[in-house]
Order: sequence, then C-alpha cells, then structure tokens
Amino acid sequence: MRNLQGRLDLCSINTATLGHREALSVTIDRIAAAGFGGIAPWRHEMENANVADIARQIRALGLSVTGYCRSTYVPAANRAQFKANIESNKAALRDAATLGARCFVMVVGGLPEGSRDLNGARAQVIEGIAELLDTARECGVPLALEPLHPMYAADRAVLNTLAQALDICAQVDPGHGGFLGVAVDVYHCWWDPALQASIGRAGQDDRLLAFHVCDWLRETRDLLLDRGMMGDGGIDLAAVRSDVEQAGYDGLVEVEIFSKENWWRRDPDEVLRICADRLQTVC
Amino acid sequence: MRNLQGRLDLCSINTATLGHREALSVTIDRIAAAGFGGIAPWRHEMENANVADIARQIRALGLSVTGYCRSTYVPAANRAQFKANIESNKAALRDAATLGARCFVMVVGGLPEGSRDLNGARAQVIEGIAELLDTARECGVPLALEPLHPMYAADRAVLNTLAQALDICAQVDPGHGGFLGVAVDVYHCWWDPALQASIGRAGQDDRLLAFHVCDWLRETRDLLLDRGMMGDGGIDLAAVRSDVEQAGYDGLVEVEIFSKENWWRRDPDEVLRICADRLQTVC
Repeated sequence: MRNLQGRLDLCSINTATLGHREALSVTIDRIAAAGFGGIAPWRHEMENANVADIARQIRALGLSVTGYCRSTYVPAANRAQFKANIESNKAALRDAATLGARCFVMVVGGLPEGSRDLNGARAQVIEGIAELLDTARECGVPLALEPLHPMYAADRAVLNTLAQALDICAQVDPGHGGFLGVAVDVYHCWWDPALQASIGRAGQDDRLLAFHVCDWLRETRDLLLDRGMMGDGGIDLAAVRSDVEQAGYDGLVEVEIFSKENWWRRDPDEVLRICADRLQTVC
Repeated sequence: MRNLQGRLDLCSINTATLGHREALSVTIDRIAAAGFGGIAPWRHEMENANVADIARQIRALGLSVTGYCRSTYVPAANRAQFKANIESNKAALRDAATLGARCFVMVVGGLPEGSRDLNGARAQVIEGIAELLDTARECGVPLALEPLHPMYAADRAVLNTLAQALDICAQVDPGHGGFLGVAVDVYHCWWDPALQASIGRAGQDDRLLAFHVCDWLRETRDLLLDRGMMGDGGIDLAAVRSDVEQAGYDGLVEVEIFSKENWWRRDPDEVLRICADRLQTVC
C-alpha cells in the first residue's frame, strides 16, 4: 500500500466536501493551495461558469480531475424521459472530456416515481450504460459505475453492490474496451461481506477507476447528509485502501463528505486541513 | 402463492407495529380481536409481566407466536461481555420456549463501541451462534438469523445479506438439524440483487423460519423509525412473498413497522385494521 505521508499529490477533494458554498473557481484555488493533487467537481457547479475556463484553471494549477459528478439518473417512467436522460449524460460526457476527467461518475438513479419495478429499473440502467459507452469512448472519458449504499435503492441508485456493478461491466463491455469500470466509495460498500472479493475481481477485470473515502458515523442522523470525516466512524479505511491498491488501483484517493450539520458549516480551509491530516494518518 | 383474502389466520402482528404503548396483555387482546393468527412479542415487554401468564393468554386466544424478539447483541469488546451476551440469549431462548415461539429472532449486533473490526465482529457472531445452537435445540426453538439492512452494520447487525446468513447456517449447522435458519424481512433485503437467488437457496436448505413485511418509503426520514405501511413504499411485496412461498415457506406473514412519527401515533385498532387491509390487498 502506498504511504500517503507527505503525498497529498495522491489525494483529491470532491468539491461536495466543502458544501458547494462558494464559486467553483474559488474552491479550485483552495484545493490547489492546500496541496492536493486532484479535484472532483460537480455539474451543477458549472451552471455559472464556463467549462473551458474551469478546465484551464484546473490544468494551470496542476490538478487532476479524479471524476466528474455525476450522471443524470437513467431509469424513467417513459421512453421519452429515458432518452432525455441519456442525452443529458452524453452532454455531460463532453464536458467531462473538456475537463480532462479521469472518469464520469455514474450514480445510476433509483426507481421511477411511484414504481416498484426494481428489476425493470435495473434493466433500464444496463440499457442506458450500453448506449452511453459509445459516447464515453468517443469522448475518451470512462464511465465509472458507482454502487450506492442500499439505503438509496429507491431514490438514487438501483446499483447497490460492487459485484452487481462488475456484472454489468462484464455484460455491457465484455471486451474490456477501457471505457467502463467502477468507482469504489467506502461509504457505500464498507458493509458488504463480498467487498474484498469484489475489489479483487474489479482489479483482475481492470475496472478500478476511482476510490472515494469518508467514514460511516455510528450514529448517523441523516440518510444523505451525515457522512463522517475519515477516522470518526466505523470503517477500517486502511484495510479497504490496501485491498484496492493490491488489486492494482494507482489513482488518487478522493475525499467525498456530505455533512450538512458539521463539515459544511466549518471554514473550508479548516476542512481541507483536517482532510489532509486524516488522509495521511488514518487512510 | 397463497391468497391472503379472508385469511388473517395466516397473518401475524409484531407488537412493535403498535409502538409498545400499552401493556403486552392489552396488545395481545387487540391482535386476537382483530382476527390475526399470530403475534411476535418483544423481550422488554416481559419486564412487567410473567412469561408463563403471557404464554397462557396467547395460547388461550389461539395465536401462534411467529417469533420472539430479539437477541442480545453478540459482538463485544471483551470476552466477559461476549459470554454475558451469550448467557442473556440462552435465558431468552428458555422464555421463547415457554411462549411456544416458532423461532428466536437473532439481530446479531453491530461493531463493538469504538471498534472498526468488521471481520472480527462477524467472527464473534458465528462463534456465538454456534454456542447458542445447542441451547436452541434443547429448548426446541430454532434460531432465526435476521440479516439487517446494511445501514445498520455499524450499530445493530454485522449480518447484512441473506446470502451471508445462509453461509453462516451452512458453516455452523452443516447437518441441517432443524434449529438454525433465517428470518426474511423485506425492509432489510428488498434492494439485494441476489435476493431471489438467496430465497431459493434458503428454501432448498430448509432455512426459512419467518417472513416480515412493511414497506420502504421513498423519502425515509429516519434510519430506524420510519418504516412504511405495506403499499406506501417502493417494495414489490407480492413478488417477494411469491418467491418466499415458492421456496417452501408456509408460515405466517408477519407485519413489523417501526414508525415513530406516523403509525405509532395512531389508534392501535386503526393500525391493525389498515394492516389487515393491506395484507389482503398489496402483499
């Protein structure tokens, strides 16, 4: 396992960690000034910015873009909406290419409103990924399927385990074309009895595109916005990173923390300092 | 699949559904008067009651006890506490026998306070189950391992999928002695991509001891106490029940709803009426 001491160049900050309280250009400067090697921005941050300008700023500061967040949800109640979702993701992939993103993070979407057809939603996801894969190849940006914690199966992602994501990769991209893989986020996967085996398989299949860290707080108060800082929860982060790196992952370690009541209320530079400290000591 | 229309004798109420607001003896009378065939009481309800008296009341009303809730958490920070946890469960098994319970529901426990050793906690669970199995056999009450939703992995149960539970059954009880199986609760398992396969395996292995229903609300506000009434959420309940019964389950369908802000505030008889209606129409 790589030693992260003094190697913030191997670490990345997902901008959600700072709560999206400032303009993206300000956030980029903060992350670079704090010494991190990478950044993962969000699409909604581009609404008041020019993607090419942002790309130039990021490149000038020497930051990698460890992922572009995130896909429009794929499953829809009707075909017109499904097609619109796919088109939205194609547009985002082109922006991801402009940004030089190492992957486009696919949070695939939950059940369509009012639906109970979990298998149907999962089938739509597979169809959608297959359609997006061509665009990903053209753009030169891999799709990173991110399994989300099962508590999001209804409203955010019907993709819930790493094994399920790897099965989809194998089905949609049997030739291992290099543009379909997975994002492993400890928050979503840490509980999985098959995690170690699935990480090994992801490595063998050459699918490891991103690795995200935070922590699971024992007393989680909110299903979405109460993630913990690394070291404050129950995840053995070093063990998971060891597995991921032993499986061949050599990309950056990305911090992604949604924390409405705690970290999003703190001074952004303080948050970055603590992220840097924890990355070097408990990850 | 069995038709539940007019068959409340095939249905059971877990007393938690009524919010534990009344004495157990009152709750028992309500459930019997509403026409249900079974009940699943909790250990803490016995604190102000005599187990033999409760057993007599339940039997006189012709109710089955579809499960006795629930085990003391097994994993502990030290051996003395681990042994105390096992002893506590042995005592509960004797009460379960007095009640004539069809199973003792094992919610196995999460990480010991401050621990990040998920594999260690899981090993303690296996050791504990092996030790309790002898007592279960002596008492004539099977242990029903209940995989809990992964969002409880830290604080309530490191047993999180049906496949994991069945692996433990196979390891601890390779001879299929009849006193170790699983409780399938749709709330915990509905998202699992392997659910249908695991239910089939549970049937083949003759491990299906209990089946619990409620629903997953799309906008869940609390990790523990915001379960939905059947039909109000995203789970295809009829599909899961069909799988469970096709796999050989012929026991009762038990309703278990934790709902602090909604169902626990309503009149208990109204809750029972709505449970009865939903069991016969959407399950």
